Parts: sequence; structure tokens; C-alpha cells
Amino acid sequence: MAPNSSEEHPTDPREPAEFQRRLNQAQANCAVAGFAALLISPSADLVYLTGYAAIPLERLTCLVIQPGQPAILLVPHLEQSAALAAPVAALDVEILPWEETQDPYALIAQRIPSGRLGFDNHMWAEKIIAFLAAIPGAQPGLAGAVIGPMRELKSAAEVAALQRAGAAIDAVHRQVPDFLREGRTEREVAADIAAAITVEHETVDFVIVASGPNGASPHHAVSDRVIQAGEPIVVDIGGTMPDGYCSDCTRVYCIGEPPADYTDAYGVLEAAQRNAVRSVKPGVTGEDLDAAARSVLADAGLGEYFIHRTGHGIGLDSHEEPYIVAGNREPIVAGNVFSIEPGLYFPDKYGARIEDIVVCEADGPVALNQTPHGITVV
Amino acid sequence: MAPNSSEEHPTDPREPAEFQRRLNQAQANCAVAGFAALLISPSADLVYLTGYAAIPLERLTCLVIQPGQPAILLVPHLEQSAALAAPVAALDVEILPWEETQDPYALIAQRIPSGRLGFDNHMWAEKIIAFLAAIPGAQPGLAGAVIGPMRELKSAAEVAALQRAGAAIDAVHRQVPDFLREGRTEREVAADIAAAITVEHETVDFVIVASGPNGASPHHAVSDRVIQAGEPIVVDIGGTMPDGYCSDCTRVYCIGEPPADYTDAYGVLEAAQRNAVRSVKPGVTGEDLDAAARSVLADAGLGEYFIHRTGHGIGLDSHEEPYIVAGNREPIVAGNVFSIEPGLYFPDKYGARIEDIVVCEADGPVALNQTPHGITVV
Repeated sequence: MAPNSSEEHPTDPREPAEFQRRLNQAQANCAVAGFAALLISPSADLVYLTGYAAIPLERLTCLVIQPGQPAILLVPHLEQSAALAAPVAALDVEILPWEETQDPYALIAQRIPSGRLGFDNHMWAEKIIAFLAAIPGAQPGLAGAVIGPMRELKSAAEVAALQRAGAAIDAVHRQVPDFLREGRTEREVAADIAAAITVEHETVDFVIVASGPNGASPHHAVSDRVIQAGEPIVVDIGGTMPDGYCSDCTRVYCIGEPPADYTDAYGVLEAAQRNAVRSVKPGVTGEDLDAAARSVLADAGLGEYFIHRTGHGIGLDSHEEPYIVAGNREPIVAGNVFSIEPGLYFPDKYGARIEDIVVCEADGPVALNQTPHGITVV
Repeated sequence: MAPNSSEEHPTDPREPAEFQRRLNQAQANCAVAGFAALLISPSADLVYLTGYAAIPLERLTCLVIQPGQPAILLVPHLEQSAALAAPVAALDVEILPWEETQDPYALIAQRIPSGRLGFDNHMWAEKIIAFLAAIPGAQPGLAGAVIGPMRELKSAAEVAALQRAGAAIDAVHRQVPDFLREGRTEREVAADIAAAITVEHETVDFVIVASGPNGASPHHAVSDRVIQAGEPIVVDIGGTMPDGYCSDCTRVYCIGEPPADYTDAYGVLEAAQRNAVRSVKPGVTGEDLDAAARSVLADAGLGEYFIHRTGHGIGLDSHEEPYIVAGNREPIVAGNVFSIEPGLYFPDKYGARIEDIVVCEADGPVALNQTPHGITVV
């Protein structure tokens, strides 16, 4: 399905051999990119490289990747058994516990040279400052320069994982009409949706239920507003699967018929979303795809109501590279996976958004969400 | 209750006047600490200073505090309405939206001088690196040097909020015996606990259900292990209340009677926990309190089985200053709130931990958790 699939078709993105391959590639690219070491804290990067889903906390957990040395995973002593139970234990990685009274930054400083350090893109400031204090002369940089391009290019197993995530969130969207009744609040509906996401996924990432005027704020989550008949309801939901891969899908619902002017604008939005999706192919840029959606809305005089970018990459993070936005002139390649989600926001009235996750394959787009795009009238 | 309470007794920690007072204090302390500006990204610090609970995402949201200027809250355009609906809108803060095609770091660079910058302790590396690139000559530091001491000293309203959080998690612990039946898995029990936390709080932060040998790993979460009669079950749970304040409490359960040697060790653990709690008073250090727990265990020959620090501060974060650990020689003051949670970990057998949240008041400790400390036999 994805470009790496010509060699093999694994369906589990968490095979030890796959983690080891990624670690080896990160180590090779670390040297090429001129880093003395990459320092990876608990994050999607750590999961991607080792399968170890540690939670970011005040105690330092850090994977150290450097040229010519096996990787080291420094962990607080009390997390050691959790690390040993993760896929990382089967890899060529030294697991190094530290005690509560030790300085973990000094322990790492003894094991790496000074120079340009690639910090995990989500590493916390307090950890970066501690590393810079412990390693005189270190120059801060971003490990994302090495890991980002690797994560952007999904393997066949990762695409399959994202396909399962897409099917999971589709199954939730199919239940949404059962949760919508006049007189219920957004919060009540969101609670039902969250429970359904939990059944289909491992965790709930976000639940947006934006009724009527609340739909005019793209990132409105939920409120105690009572949902009325005849007003559009934007439902944008996502979760994380047991294997770490994320879902994200937006559809619009209405209890009874929506206003006629809304239906007209919505029809244009459907065309805009469709135009961006069918423009997906290797070589097109994020900027091109953004324009493919935006131009359809602008041509209908609706351009000013589309106030955000067209999409974002998705994988082990809900939002990651590549971003589908004006200014992103990097070519999309086969194996990239991202959302296409244009929207319209009419202040004080209502909003609309249609979102699918799309894989760029060698011969064009494959959408991972399959429920109908039209307004679902309940 | 807390030291600030002599002047007033507000019960809502989210009063606009309180946020404005904190902002003013942060601005004054920013100058004293020698920072050109404090840069606060979505985090508990941002909630503490402005009441705005933004989610950390790739788009930059940043509160800028600098001497002699009103604060600025830079927000992505699509988050503007969320920001305007938060308490921050009522404060002396300029809310500055940026468009998808603008460079938000350049916008802030135009508004602050170069110099020593205090980054939010949880700001992501990718944002720090972008700031350092946009502001030539900037020296990175931590805003926690200013905000940390403020957050550590809870107001009467904050102590009241933490007391409500304590009561909420106590209400969940009282339900745990109903969820425990021989033959159920840790995961099934945890799902019931999570649902109960959601009823009593706004969100679930963590659920540890560690049965038998799983209890020997302090941070074991849950597994598909089937719980057996006669084995101790460590249940460590916490959530966040609608006002942002966190709960955290650990108790031990057993279906039927636990082994006699376990009961003996547990009795020593109860004495150790009690000794640390009753040692709490202004002027004692985190190191002293850690020793107060540890010495009781060591005297009974159990010192080697207590493999973590004795506790952590709690407030808008589950884990924050002050840490109750050897090496922390800062004196505890009235208004500090933290956990006292010694534990015992017997590899391949079982574990034990007793945790209460404790307020240091002028005349000694007040525990915010009230369920019995003994093993609850179901």
C-alpha cells in the first residue's frame, strides 16, 4: 500500500526488527546531520524508535543515540520494570537506571561528547536547560531534523495501523446519530462519544461537539449549551489505538433540516474537500493542496470564512508533519498520511468542517474514513 | 487555612482579581530575577496566571510577561474565541491573534528585547529553538525560577480547591471494594475506577491497579492480569477537577486476607507514613520528611525495599515543587501542599504504598485524604 510495501507486508508496526531498523537509521542520520547525539524524551518519537510509551514527567527518561555507540535508555529506577516490559528491552539498547539521589543529566554528560545536540522536539524546557548546564559548550538543535522525515514516511504496517484507526473512528461516527436528541447538551453528547471512542480505541484524544454558533470557533470543544433542532453540529473526534496510532475525523450532523443557506455553503465545502483529496499525489506540495481546497471556496465567495490551514500529518501524534498549509513547498511523497479538513466559520451563526485522513500512494489518494460526507440529518 | 488566608477567604481559585494579582507579581519578579521576558506556553503555569487552559499543540500560543509593559497573549487566530471565553479576557492582557501564514516567533521578537528569556518549564524544544533563532543574542533560562515559588505557596482558595479534589478521590476509593471481585482483570477494575473518577472530577489523570507481583513496580499501570484472592492490590489514582486542581491517593486492597508476612511489613509502612506526616511543619525540609519515612522502614530492616522518594508537590500539576526527597534542603513553609507516599516493593511478590496529600499549615499537617490507611479486605 505504501512505498515500503514492495519488500514486505508486515501488519504490526511494533515488530522489534522494525524498531531496530529505525534506531539504526536514526543513528546513521544523526552523524550525517552533524549531531553529536540525539536526546529523545518521552514522546511519540520515543514510541516510534523503541515502542516504549513513557509518560512525560519531572524525572528524566531519555534515549541517547550517538554515532558509533549502542543507544542508551536512561530511566528512573522506579520505571525500570516498565521499560523492561516494553519492546525496547529486545533491542540493542543499554537500559541504564538512575537512583532518586543521582543527577541523571550528569550521567548522560559522562556518556556523550559535547557538540550539537538534537533535543526531542517535545522535550521540556527544564530538561533542555539542565542538559545545557551539564554539557558545557553544547549547541541546542532539534532531533526532529532526523526523526521527523522518518516518521513522515509511513511503512505499510503503519498505514495499516492508521487504516484500523480510521475504521475505529468511523464506527464511532456511525453511532453519533443515536446520541443526538433535542434538549441534550453538548457535554452529554460528548460523554457518550467519549465512551464509544474508548471502546473502539485505547484512549480518547479529543471530542468536539460544536452546536450552532459554537461551530463558528474551529477549536471549540464542548459546553453546557442545549442543542436545538435545525442547527448544524460539528463533531470532530479522535483517539489513540492500543498500538499508538491516532484517528481524527469530522462530520456535521443536524437534528431536523438545517437552514437552506447553510446547505448551500456546505455543498461548496464538500466540493472543496473533494478537490483537495483528489489532488493528492506524489510531488504535489502542502501549499498546492491547501490552495486546491481554498480556491473552490474563494471562487464561491466563501474564502474569508475558511480561517485555518487545510490539514496536518497524523501517525503516532494527532498533529505532525506534513502540514497542509500555504508556505509548505515540500513535495508530498507516497507514504505521507495527513488530514484534508477545510471548514467554514460564520461568526455567531454556525460552522462546518469535513475531515478525512488521506494516504498519498504512488498512484494517488486513498481516504481512510468512509462515512458519507453529507450533513447527517437525525 | 493557608498563610494567605489571614487577609481574605475566597473559595474560588479562579477569580479574575486573583489572576491579575499573580500576573502583576510575575511581572515584578521577572524584573527582579533579571529576565527580559517570561514566555509561557500552554501548561499549568498558563492556567495559574490567566485561567486559560490551552492544549499544547504545534501552533504557538504564548503569554509574554515583561517589565514595564502589559502582558501579551499570542494565540492562533482559530483559538482566539476560546481565549476570549477564558478568564484571561477580563485581565489586563493584550490578546494578539496570528494568522496561519504568519511567523508567530517573529511577532513576539518585535515586542520584546533580547536578553535572558525565561521559558515555561514545560515549553517544547521546537518552540525554544524557534525563539532562539528569532531573537539573536537571547539567553535561555526557566520561567519556573519566577513562577515555581509562586505556585508552591498555595492561597486559601487553592487549598480549598485541593481539599475538594481530595474529597473527590476519597469518594472514588470508597467505591473500589465494589469493583474488586476474584477473576476480574486489572484492566476491568481500572475501567470502573476511571468511570468513577470522571463522575467526581473533570478528567482522569492516571489509574494504577497493581495486583500481586505487579505491585512490585511502583509505576505499573494496568494489565490483563486476572486478580487472585489473597494478593495485595495497590490502587493509586488521580484526576483533575473542573477548576484545574489535581487529586492523588493510594490505598491497598485485598480480596480475602493477605499473607501474614505482608501484613507485618504493611504495619511498618503505616508507621513510616504516619511518622512523615506528623513531622510536617514550617521549617522542616523535604529531605527531613523523606528521612522521617525512610528511617522507620530502615529500622525494621525494610529500607532496601523503599526505592523512590517520599512525595511530590501537587496543585495544577499532579507533580510539582516541592519534592520530598533526599537532597532537597529548602524549608517547607505554610501553604505548601504535597504527597507523603512511602512504599515497599518486593520483586516478584507484591508491593505496598500509602499516599495522602498533606497541607503544611502554620501549626502542622492537615491531611486532605480521609479514608482508612489499613489494608481494605474485600
